[in-house]
Amino acid sequence: MPLRLSSLFLRTLRDNPADAEVASHQLMVRAGCIRRAAPGIYSWLPLGMKLLRNLEEIVREEMEHIGSQEVHFPALLPKEPYEATGRWADYGDNMFRLQDRKDADYLLAPTHEEVFTLAVKDLYTSYKDLPLSIYQIQTKYRDEARPRAGLLRGREFIMKDSYSFALEQQDQDAAYAAHRAAYLRIFDRLGLEVVPVDAVSGAMGGSASEEFLFPCAIGEDTFVESDGGYRANVEAVTTVAPEPVDASGLPPAEVHHTPGTDTIETLVAAAQADHPRPDRAWTAADTLKNVVIGVDMPDGTRKVAVIGLPGDRAADLKRIEAAVGEHLGAAGEVAVEAGTEADLRANPGLVRGYIGPGLSREEPVLGVEGSSGVPYLVDPRVVEGTSWITGANAADQHVFGLVAGRDFGWDGVIEAAEVREGDEAPDGSGPLRTRRGIELGHIFHLGTGYAEALGLKVLDVNGKLATVTMGSYGFGVTRVLAALAEANHDEKGLIWPGSIAPADVHVVATGKDQAIHDAAEQLVADLEVSGVSTLFDDRPKVSPGVKFSDAELLGMPTIVVVGRGLAEGNVELKDRRSGESEQVRLDGAVSVIAERAAALR
Amino acid sequence: MPLRLSSLFLRTLRDNPADAEVASHQLMVRAGCIRRAAPGIYSWLPLGMKLLRNLEEIVREEMEHIGSQEVHFPALLPKEPYEATGRWADYGDNMFRLQDRKDADYLLAPTHEEVFTLAVKDLYTSYKDLPLSIYQIQTKYRDEARPRAGLLRGREFIMKDSYSFALEQQDQDAAYAAHRAAYLRIFDRLGLEVVPVDAVSGAMGGSASEEFLFPCAIGEDTFVESDGGYRANVEAVTTVAPEPVDASGLPPAEVHHTPGTDTIETLVAAAQADHPRPDRAWTAADTLKNVVIGVDMPDGTRKVAVIGLPGDRAADLKRIEAAVGEHLGAAGEVAVEAGTEADLRANPGLVRGYIGPGLSREEPVLGVEGSSGVPYLVDPRVVEGTSWITGANAADQHVFGLVAGRDFGWDGVIEAAEVREGDEAPDGSGPLRTRRGIELGHIFHLGTGYAEALGLKVLDVNGKLATVTMGSYGFGVTRVLAALAEANHDEKGLIWPGSIAPADVHVVATGKDQAIHDAAEQLVADLEVSGVSTLFDDRPKVSPGVKFSDAELLGMPTIVVVGRGLAEGNVELKDRRSGESEQVRLDGAVSVIAERAAALR
Repeated sequence: MPLRLSSLFLRTLRDNPADAEVASHQLMVRAGCIRRAAPGIYSWLPLGMKLLRNLEEIVREEMEHIGSQEVHFPALLPKEPYEATGRWADYGDNMFRLQDRKDADYLLAPTHEEVFTLAVKDLYTSYKDLPLSIYQIQTKYRDEARPRAGLLRGREFIMKDSYSFALEQQDQDAAYAAHRAAYLRIFDRLGLEVVPVDAVSGAMGGSASEEFLFPCAIGEDTFVESDGGYRANVEAVTTVAPEPVDASGLPPAEVHHTPGTDTIETLVAAAQADHPRPDRAWTAADTLKNVVIGVDMPDGTRKVAVIGLPGDRAADLKRIEAAVGEHLGAAGEVAVEAGTEADLRANPGLVRGYIGPGLSREEPVLGVEGSSGVPYLVDPRVVEGTSWITGANAADQHVFGLVAGRDFGWDGVIEAAEVREGDEAPDGSGPLRTRRGIELGHIFHLGTGYAEALGLKVLDVNGKLATVTMGSYGFGVTRVLAALAEANHDEKGLIWPGSIAPADVHVVATGKDQAIHDAAEQLVADLEVSGVSTLFDDRPKVSPGVKFSDAELLGMPTIVVVGRGLAEGNVELKDRRSGESEQVRLDGAVSVIAERAAALR
Repeated sequence: MPLRLSSLFLRTLRDNPADAEVASHQLMVRAGCIRRAAPGIYSWLPLGMKLLRNLEEIVREEMEHIGSQEVHFPALLPKEPYEATGRWADYGDNMFRLQDRKDADYLLAPTHEEVFTLAVKDLYTSYKDLPLSIYQIQTKYRDEARPRAGLLRGREFIMKDSYSFALEQQDQDAAYAAHRAAYLRIFDRLGLEVVPVDAVSGAMGGSASEEFLFPCAIGEDTFVESDGGYRANVEAVTTVAPEPVDASGLPPAEVHHTPGTDTIETLVAAAQADHPRPDRAWTAADTLKNVVIGVDMPDGTRKVAVIGLPGDRAADLKRIEAAVGEHLGAAGEVAVEAGTEADLRANPGLVRGYIGPGLSREEPVLGVEGSSGVPYLVDPRVVEGTSWITGANAADQHVFGLVAGRDFGWDGVIEAAEVREGDEAPDGSGPLRTRRGIELGHIFHLGTGYAEALGLKVLDVNGKLATVTMGSYGFGVTRVLAALAEANHDEKGLIWPGSIAPADVHVVATGKDQAIHDAAEQLVADLEVSGVSTLFDDRPKVSPGVKFSDAELLGMPTIVVVGRGLAEGNVELKDRRSGESEQVRLDGAVSVIAERAAALR
């Protein structure tokens, strides 16, 4: 049945809503797809529903194609499984929590690892039952601190999430590969240019991990790529560490009085002025900067650590956050920020502006074995034998020529420094460019973390209990719609791809002539019979100008105008994307339009 | 693609789960459709998902058929709109409430009247936009005190809810009629015998109101029907009130000492023993019983009222609950229980066991104008001129011959008495039978209550603001699945109607013979190509007995056995419902099965 603008629950808006900053948000509201119900929470109007259903259908087809089976878990879940995995605490303020009438604790699930794992434990007992892949398309809840950009970062949103279960790694690898292929097919069908990039997975994550990013200036994720084909989320980029240096000929370190040099800039200037070296000038790269970070652990405690990195590199807190947990023994996700006044007060061994690892290996200051007791992690560029200017742990004092390995050690090596445009790709495929992107999917080996925490074991081929290994595959359904709107619009409005457009064609009847309206009505009926879905602007008292601008705003791929040309037996076909139009005979219009619609789908 | 039992995420259970008391719950768990996640909260497994999607599709088609447009509102909603209508308080413990990270109040919506109303207010401004009908299929939340019977009374469940919006009553009537017809078509397609019965609507309800009940012994609703076609929910049955009686010849009332007669039984016996009347014996119907009720008002306060009704009738608290609110000026739903000790203590004018309206109209005890100040409502049988034995408001004292209208008045008339098997239908269509049923849908005129509370007004044809009138149409999707399971099962398992069965046929390959398996595999492929959906028991090492009993438990309408008969070129077709089977030639089996499947759908 055609969608009729005379009765469609829709009001198009000429102006952008005040709270909408990105194009997808502005246009999806103006085109009557969604309306805001609360911060980060949206209602779906009829045109939005059509988009959503069309997208869900594509996702279902591709999931079925790889043998994944559809299930559906509750959004409202009891606390207990999430306590067993530690995530009840880990999620902090990001999780909506509530109590029922009996004061039992519940949550609105932000993700469903626990219930997927328990469902398999509930039903399956043997290696013969595996491998298994199950998925759901479901509403998720996340109490974002800053919901923004419409559907891009919401508090109630729809995801497709699948999990695979296997005993053999090769089965898990196959499930991973199948999901990767399915995602690429989905994005291909949507005509959305999405790039898979290497990623590090979050808490309890396993090894291989890729994100599917839609490159886009408004994206919240940063990734890098090289001409040679390397692509990675910036958190996943590994540094090409230099070879260790032979430091046997180097003189001992010397402490110098360097008043007022609590920044790298002032330090380098003072070093150059007071202690120049003969061969070349000092640069920030010669200094070892020691950055204090505060880490909120999953169990609610706070830890402080110091990160040592070359002074010419900024510390990247997101990269640190992705990696620091395992060094500190965290069981889940941590939150990292620059060390606060309180952190420094709690660690009087740290002298602000002049922090250093200590003057000798015998008397270390940083490190769990050092006098400060604060864990010390260093950038991969700090290799054995490299020589540094760094803090001497006393106000206005720095030590020159302090040699890594000889004069100081560390508790671990961490990817802590910002990745820069022009850095070498770790696989040697050339210099890196940085780009922004929107994360639309994430696939990764989940390992056995959840299975162990929740006791998912089955009998293996030898009759012994074995822990199941899992894979996790997320796909942001509502976020993909927003990305599609970002990718497919112009100054006039939306341009939906045929694969998900609410209708194949938008038929506009112009003028007050009854014959025109009747011809349009007949054309619409014939198109529907031919399997072409139509949006029909049958409003009798609306001007052609308003109708045309609505058609451009709403964004059906093809606009068919039944108007003045009808006198010569013609209708006009307009391609919404290219703007090109052609006259076709009304006689053969149905087959021409049907062919065109099929090609665009 | 066929569903393959070798890989389907399913484990059939031979035994009923301990917590399942009704057949639909037992069988849907045993057949791997659902699993309990928490009290009243269920996970959906692959076979359950197929059922759900098939049912949702039928509902969508019929809603589209009547021109209703699909939308989708959030489940997580801010408090404010529900405060504007008073339902934030009204819902009491039945609503899940929570706070976000900024301590703002939210709820998990039990119904969506407010947001539907606000969405129309948001978009529409003129009579030209109306009438409108919009619907959603959505997950609802209700914190039931006693979730029970699996999907029949859950805390997270799926409903289709629609609302219609109109300025003219005739448009509202048309929307009501369209929904009524759509519901009947849906139940017809499902092969479910559902009866529409007159109902009273809840808080803020309007006039016409019908429930769609599936007659069933385990149903929570009671309804009545007559041979003449009258059907009503027991709360909606009206009493045929007798004509007023001429009391001019009756003697004045007399107070008698009636020690130890604080029950109707003892009172009738004492009246008969000590004060017999000449023409006939006293019966309970001659007494006027005055029942104290406690009413929890929507605003959290408690009110006490007295209900007067003939002593041979029990008070029906559910009927009183449905009707008492408007008499007490309640803005929303009230909760009624028998008056408590505390209620009596708070109203010392009420003498337990001997309560009565007072001895004369000049000195009333009951009623807002009476000395007790307690509102007094009477059953419709208490008409002018009827004469009663009732309490004299003093211990061991009753008054005889107290005449309604002459000696006492009342604040209102209320349907308070139980409806009995054999009572006359109010439309004169014969005596009533009482039956139990499961409420699957409810349609009613909602009136202007929500539109007024939330300010939904549009310009009418004269350019003046007019309040929109609404209709409300609920349909319990998950509950309908449970009702279907109740209606379609036998001792062996489920028997799904073809219209929603997870697959048209269940193909069972028996024996270890590779030729049998290959033939079954080919048959399944051919059936799928012919548009027949299949569930294929391809498990290689499972006995025929287990396969047959699984087929009977899972309940596809037709079972096809590929086994021993294959040697003679035959397969067996078994009708799951009748149990009848026939041999058909493998050659022509596809078309025979396809025809059969189409007929059953």
